[in-house]
Amino acid sequence: MTSTHQRIEHDLLGDLAVPASAYYGVHTLRALDNFPITGIAISAYPNLINALASVKEAAAMANHELGLLSAQKMSAIVHACRQVRQGVAHEHFVVDVIQGGAGTSTNMNANEVIANVALEHLGHQRGEYAVLHPNEDVNLGQSTNDVYPTALKIATYAGIMQLLEAMAILRASFERKAEEFKDDLKMGRTQLQDAVPMTLGQEFSTFAVMLGEDEERLREAAKLICEINLGATAIGTGINTDPQYARLVCRHLSNITSIPLTTSPNLVEATQDVGSFVQLSGVLKRVAVKLSKTCNDLRLLSSGPRAGLGEINLPPVQAGSSIMPGKVNPVIPEVVNQIAFEVLGNDVTVSFAAEAGQLQLNAFEPIIAHSLFKSVAHLRAGCLTLASKCVDGITANRDRLRSIIENSIGIVTALNPYIGYTHATAVAQEALASGRSVAEIVLENGLLSQAQLDEILQPAMLTQPRKIAAAT
Amino acid sequence: MTSTHQRIEHDLLGDLAVPASAYYGVHTLRALDNFPITGIAISAYPNLINALASVKEAAAMANHELGLLSAQKMSAIVHACRQVRQGVAHEHFVVDVIQGGAGTSTNMNANEVIANVALEHLGHQRGEYAVLHPNEDVNLGQSTNDVYPTALKIATYAGIMQLLEAMAILRASFERKAEEFKDDLKMGRTQLQDAVPMTLGQEFSTFAVMLGEDEERLREAAKLICEINLGATAIGTGINTDPQYARLVCRHLSNITSIPLTTSPNLVEATQDVGSFVQLSGVLKRVAVKLSKTCNDLRLLSSGPRAGLGEINLPPVQAGSSIMPGKVNPVIPEVVNQIAFEVLGNDVTVSFAAEAGQLQLNAFEPIIAHSLFKSVAHLRAGCLTLASKCVDGITANRDRLRSIIENSIGIVTALNPYIGYTHATAVAQEALASGRSVAEIVLENGLLSQAQLDEILQPAMLTQPRKIAAAT
Amino acid sequence: MTSTHQRIEHDLLGDLAVPASAYYGVHTLRALDNFPITGIAISAYPNLINALASVKEAAAMANHELGLLSAQKMSAIVHACRQVRQGVAHEHFVVDVIQGGAGTSTNMNANEVIANVALEHLGHQRGEYAVLHPNEDVNLGQSTNDVYPTALKIATYAGIMQLLEAMAILRASFERKAEEFKDDLKMGRTQLQDAVPMTLGQEFSTFAVMLGEDEERLREAAKLICEINLGATAIGTGINTDPQYARLVCRHLSNITSIPLTTSPNLVEATQDVGSFVQLSGVLKRVAVKLSKTCNDLRLLSSGPRAGLGEINLPPVQAGSSIMPGKVNPVIPEVVNQIAFEVLGNDVTVSFAAEAGQLQLNAFEPIIAHSLFKSVAHLRAGCLTLASKCVDGITANRDRLRSIIENSIGIVTALNPYIGYTHATAVAQEALASGRSVAEIVLENGLLSQAQLDEILQPAMLTQPRKIAAAT
Amino acid sequence: MTSTHQRIEHDLLGDLAVPASAYYGVHTLRALDNFPITGIAISAYPNLINALASVKEAAAMANHELGLLSAQKMSAIVHACRQVRQGVAHEHFVVDVIQGGAGTSTNMNANEVIANVALEHLGHQRGEYAVLHPNEDVNLGQSTNDVYPTALKIATYAGIMQLLEAMAILRASFERKAEEFKDDLKMGRTQLQDAVPMTLGQEFSTFAVMLGEDEERLREAAKLICEINLGATAIGTGINTDPQYARLVCRHLSNITSIPLTTSPNLVEATQDVGSFVQLSGVLKRVAVKLSKTCNDLRLLSSGPRAGLGEINLPPVQAGSSIMPGKVNPVIPEVVNQIAFEVLGNDVTVSFAAEAGQLQLNAFEPIIAHSLFKSVAHLRAGCLTLASKCVDGITANRDRLRSIIENSIGIVTALNPYIGYTHATAVAQEALASGRSVAEIVLENGLLSQAQLDEILQPAMLTQPRKIAAAT
Repeated sequence: MTSTHQRIEHDLLGDLAVPASAYYGVHTLRALDNFPITGIAISAYPNLINALASVKEAAAMANHELGLLSAQKMSAIVHACRQVRQGVAHEHFVVDVIQGGAGTSTNMNANEVIANVALEHLGHQRGEYAVLHPNEDVNLGQSTNDVYPTALKIATYAGIMQLLEAMAILRASFERKAEEFKDDLKMGRTQLQDAVPMTLGQEFSTFAVMLGEDEERLREAAKLICEINLGATAIGTGINTDPQYARLVCRHLSNITSIPLTTSPNLVEATQDVGSFVQLSGVLKRVAVKLSKTCNDLRLLSSGPRAGLGEINLPPVQAGSSIMPGKVNPVIPEVVNQIAFEVLGNDVTVSFAAEAGQLQLNAFEPIIAHSLFKSVAHLRAGCLTLASKCVDGITANRDRLRSIIENSIGIVTALNPYIGYTHATAVAQEALASGRSVAEIVLENGLLSQAQLDEILQPAMLTQPRKIAAAT
Repeated sequence: MTSTHQRIEHDLLGDLAVPASAYYGVHTLRALDNFPITGIAISAYPNLINALASVKEAAAMANHELGLLSAQKMSAIVHACRQVRQGVAHEHFVVDVIQGGAGTSTNMNANEVIANVALEHLGHQRGEYAVLHPNEDVNLGQSTNDVYPTALKIATYAGIMQLLEAMAILRASFERKAEEFKDDLKMGRTQLQDAVPMTLGQEFSTFAVMLGEDEERLREAAKLICEINLGATAIGTGINTDPQYARLVCRHLSNITSIPLTTSPNLVEATQDVGSFVQLSGVLKRVAVKLSKTCNDLRLLSSGPRAGLGEINLPPVQAGSSIMPGKVNPVIPEVVNQIAFEVLGNDVTVSFAAEAGQLQLNAFEPIIAHSLFKSVAHLRAGCLTLASKCVDGITANRDRLRSIIENSIGIVTALNPYIGYTHATAVAQEALASGRSVAEIVLENGLLSQAQLDEILQPAMLTQPRKIAAAT
Repeated sequence: MTSTHQRIEHDLLGDLAVPASAYYGVHTLRALDNFPITGIAISAYPNLINALASVKEAAAMANHELGLLSAQKMSAIVHACRQVRQGVAHEHFVVDVIQGGAGTSTNMNANEVIANVALEHLGHQRGEYAVLHPNEDVNLGQSTNDVYPTALKIATYAGIMQLLEAMAILRASFERKAEEFKDDLKMGRTQLQDAVPMTLGQEFSTFAVMLGEDEERLREAAKLICEINLGATAIGTGINTDPQYARLVCRHLSNITSIPLTTSPNLVEATQDVGSFVQLSGVLKRVAVKLSKTCNDLRLLSSGPRAGLGEINLPPVQAGSSIMPGKVNPVIPEVVNQIAFEVLGNDVTVSFAAEAGQLQLNAFEPIIAHSLFKSVAHLRAGCLTLASKCVDGITANRDRLRSIIENSIGIVTALNPYIGYTHATAVAQEALASGRSVAEIVLENGLLSQAQLDEILQPAMLTQPRKIAAAT
Repeated sequence: MTSTHQRIEHDLLGDLAVPASAYYGVHTLRALDNFPITGIAISAYPNLINALASVKEAAAMANHELGLLSAQKMSAIVHACRQVRQGVAHEHFVVDVIQGGAGTSTNMNANEVIANVALEHLGHQRGEYAVLHPNEDVNLGQSTNDVYPTALKIATYAGIMQLLEAMAILRASFERKAEEFKDDLKMGRTQLQDAVPMTLGQEFSTFAVMLGEDEERLREAAKLICEINLGATAIGTGINTDPQYARLVCRHLSNITSIPLTTSPNLVEATQDVGSFVQLSGVLKRVAVKLSKTCNDLRLLSSGPRAGLGEINLPPVQAGSSIMPGKVNPVIPEVVNQIAFEVLGNDVTVSFAAEAGQLQLNAFEPIIAHSLFKSVAHLRAGCLTLASKCVDGITANRDRLRSIIENSIGIVTALNPYIGYTHATAVAQEALASGRSVAEIVLENGLLSQAQLDEILQPAMLTQPRKIAAAT
């Protein structure tokens, strides 16, 4: 006996009572029971829910055009998909982000929610699947194996666009600082040892340029995920689809999503292949590596206040210590480092999952999706936080930068073309041993005149190529 | 002007309005603003909240014993810590699981919540820190740098114990199946090629034994994390602690947690070192590798129903496909594979974070904690699910097992000691080429008599060592 | 006192006796002493030696054009570089493949060998550096920090081209098999469970298509490494170079190598950035993942001979077992799997090394180079071996493929559009339970006529989309 | 027709001409042809060759005791194994380190070399296998699947012992420095920001302690690999072995190797399981992480000479730059960092290979072995190099250490128990803003007297716990 708070649904395992208030149905309920893993529902990824609804809408339109779905059913499904994208049933996307079954539970969850939203729209009760069926109608001509990867691609694409915006904001922040610091001469360092002069502006511009290159790589990776396999159905042979279906559904889906989607030329390959996700993950790893390197540098350059390099100051954003009064720590770069480490781990997860695919399908796409969604979202949060809470407020310790340059041995490199590597080495060694300045020793040994030194050591001449007199 | 819904708190950055209803304070609020990364609060890890409360309770007791904290303050803090462990303020542990600052925000969050719960208990308003102060009293004699790693260890220990229980349940499930299948002779396989006979029981017992070994390794790793650095304060020198403090606080904490904690002999080392977390992560990786291998085998052995190996049947737990009627997939092993892949990625994250530690502290412990907590919790969920939803219901296809053995070429190996490797190779090749049975060919060539063959090929003799006649 | 078998050379640490027969000098000798790590000399990577010689040749030409190097010195250096590319001094490139110092020892090794080969050509003794100096002349206007990454890029580019050839050979092998098997109907599998029909040709064509896509990705990654930083010198500011130098040396180097090189627009960024190596490593990882998946499939499809899937036969290439007579194992796919696992590990090594770069330089380029060179070379060997020793000789077990299809339940999916998912599920369940065929049950229940069944189940119609009658 | 320089051998693929001078035979030759991957022969791992010879010797003894091998054959085999361990046939172990077939080629290579060395000893020609056969005699009662993992364990054990020696040398070097620097007060740093005082000796002692802990973990991991599966034969059922064989052969092997070997209680599990290798790899990863962290610190502390932290000096071991005169770089720590990165990658390779094992065997043990052998050998080289070329020669910049402490704000933490966290925060902020000293501000504000300050700030009291006056 069921209460009025439940309805009975049926699947191949038998009957099951579904809460009357649920838009989802029996298949979703089985999945809830089977996968109590993380406690995080797929609704945590709104881009994915929207993408699923877009796929179902496009499929309904294509099926109607092919005469396989009545106008009434089509309209109801289309309406429901739009409602879902507006969030009306968001909390009904409940299956766990980590799930077995190659995404079947996610697809079933979408089919059931959309069917029930559509049924209500048609004036029917939830669960009256004889009128409009999750599988026979909402999933018509589809398989998890083409719906799910297609939805992942659309969702990932949307996420990448959001990430790209955040990266551009961070890049602009670095570019402003590069401009602000463009005349601040400082000591460049290689292998953590004093090298030759540069400007702080040059240092900050590298952060911007690195991001810019990563944006380009991300855009290329995004292009690759615009190739979908919708129409492949179970294994790519397109069984149970009309020869026109793949083309039609792709056109509708492009329109709905405003993404320039194309259908893969070989759907059997496309259905089993997760190469574009692996590629994307590799590019996200690259972004992570660069961001982490950048944050390492920011932390190093701002080390101190008195026992560190102390070249720049990061804006304080919170007390740094529960025991050390007045301590302020580089917590924003530190959190970005940690996001990077997470992304690097996620990339390995993606590799394992991708390698484990067998024969006509990769059953492990859910963990690939989970990993990519996290990487994209956290990198985005990291970029925005780094820009607004840190980079925007960075200042230079100009006095310190100047005193280091004046005191440096590294400028001896600039004398190479004039006194030769061998002489220059001797000068450097003597400076280091004696604590005296390079210029003093050069003059004392008559290697160059004061005028020559002044000419050679002009700041502007140290940070770029310049005409060198021919060797004698 | 503040409304009655807010109170003003102060830190080194200035004043900030805290919601009147919040047990947390200004430091927590700064962290909320600074780290909008995952949207997942540290309350997602109840073991961690409990551990923090235990540390604070032990510290209050030790400080009181040393005459540094009044009886009234001590009791109020102890009471508050116990309340927190009972969950009264659970939703006030709000800082993001990924955060900069080496856990300072988590520690501050705990200090503030405990102070305010204690204040209420003392009949004061939240925020009346002149009476009892988050830093001066709750955090007395402590630093994030000893509190946080200590709490992580306690929380991780608790998690490991829960994981061990789940592993034991799964192991018992495999052991029952090993017993059930102990007489079912089957073909063993190496490199996916038919090898020599064994029993299905032997196959299942390996799954149990592998788990049992992993349990031992986990227990060893758990022991290593019982060594804490409480009393180290900022960098391990124990600055601002009484010489007796470390000993006292460890004793109290052991009592509170019932974990056999010890204080590290070198606190400077212990404060910067995350080796025991790296070790633990390595062991979790090992567990993941084995579980994944086991699930790969289960999926392989149950492949079919007609075009696969079909040796065992996994219990159906949900419909397998939105397009292929009647299809049932190995979704439970698949979800465990994916958990394993996540754990393998988490291990890489931990390695990156551990390697990035600098000088007297590892600032990246929050992502280490996040990674370990996820790995432990998800592995536990995976083991429980695998036991109850899959292994418990596995059945053997006995007809198929028998027909494969009868038809096999691999039994020729058992003839080696009698006819030699060279003759046996020729028999195997002829059997394969002709489709005939090994016995037939052996008899036809007069290599052995029927009686000898019957003797040699007794099932019980094929799956264990036996006396071999001396070579002639 | 030095014997006639030695000459004395000098560096900042003092004097050192160099074997008279050595083309290398004191700096190389220091490195030999400092880095006794792997025992593998950089001569293991001929592409790298050639690339170094090309860079030095281009630099000499550019320096001469700028009036900084005499014609005589230039010719001697150019001659020596060409000799080196012809291998005359190959065994004198002796520093360890794993070395500290950001490649300085490799660059110094090249400078010294080239200087001494040039000196001999000029009729002088090895070590007469007053005539032609490794640093002052061969390294003129250069730094390890621009020479080494530039040489790595040229060497890697050459390696990628060799890998691409091998991949094309393997792809062609798969394409021939796809054609050969294009009419062999078989059961497709998802999640290792029987799915719907396809052809064995479709299966093999996916292997070819996957490779083809990877080739495209590799070509894109190769393009990115054509951007060099020669002219950057120490940190990218181009200190000690003429404003025309970068342009000139790039042009010469492009000519010498026939690679379309360009100079990076921001040399400070280019000098510290290893993004293009990370990107390349990510793409190699992708290739590895796909190759491994392909080999997993080949091993699975050829499992048996009697207790496995047994759909295809791999050509036997060696005895498979020292104990099991007649056993033949899939050793060629297995070795490719292992190469893939190595490449996946190398990618993590590259990530760690890339992330660890600090400020104006990445000191860890040698391990990046070592990892990439291994990945590229071993993948190439794997592709060639897989093509010639395995794929070329694969045959199909046509009888088995046919009997599986005839016996399959999976074909029920094709009936969906005619009898609906719900009815089809019931048919599938009954077939499985009873061991009877799908067709038999459908007919018995009057769901379709024999004629309809014959029409629907035509092989050619099962493996591609087809016109479906409108739903009633 | 064969020349006198060849002999003909036969396997299941047919006849093959083997060079007359080769101790190896047809199976090895097939493998050479099949696996042209790295060009590195297994002779690169002498520990492995020795281990294989030890296994074969032990097996011959056990077989003789069981009456399965004549005294003459046994003696010849034993003699040959000892010869092999003395290196007489080292260059005949030629199969590639990366190979398919689960180690079969390596085992066959050993069987053939030992058989032919034994044949010569018996006065026969190489290849006269009728007298003594590689498979029937040398491999008697064995399978690759028990021989190979057993040999790997013995070889790895030997490697670990060598690594432990090197770690102890490095640890002793750090301990000497800890003693040397035990009175040098310096500023401790957390999150790269000035924290509280400590001694340089404390800093160096952490490096020693970390190594000591890793040595313990390695010893534990070494114990786990003392459990072997010899006697398991093909899949662990012990087919074709006498019930006494496993016990006997283990006893002989323990004697020969002086390693406390035991036979695994479940040989089926032991044969397919690579858990102890995964565990070991995880511990090597831990060692790598710690060593890398240590080297990062050494590089950071020695940064400069003028624009860095400059607290310590690493001994110069080679010129640092081809362009920057006098530059000396931390090349030794850098090479150790790179070894660590390699080991971290190797660990991922091991994980992939371990996870990919299927059913009764892991076919990918060769890449596991290759990865572990490299990690162990390179870590050993790194430790020895780091000790002798770097740590032994480190000196402290005492003037600089002292001036940093005197100038520091971080000592304000020591005032917490006396003036409270809130006051102390204000003092720290004012010191930072004004550039004045902490003591000055404390005195000016009458927070403490000069006498109190002198008492509190005694160096010896800052670096350890001390009695604190009770709070008022």
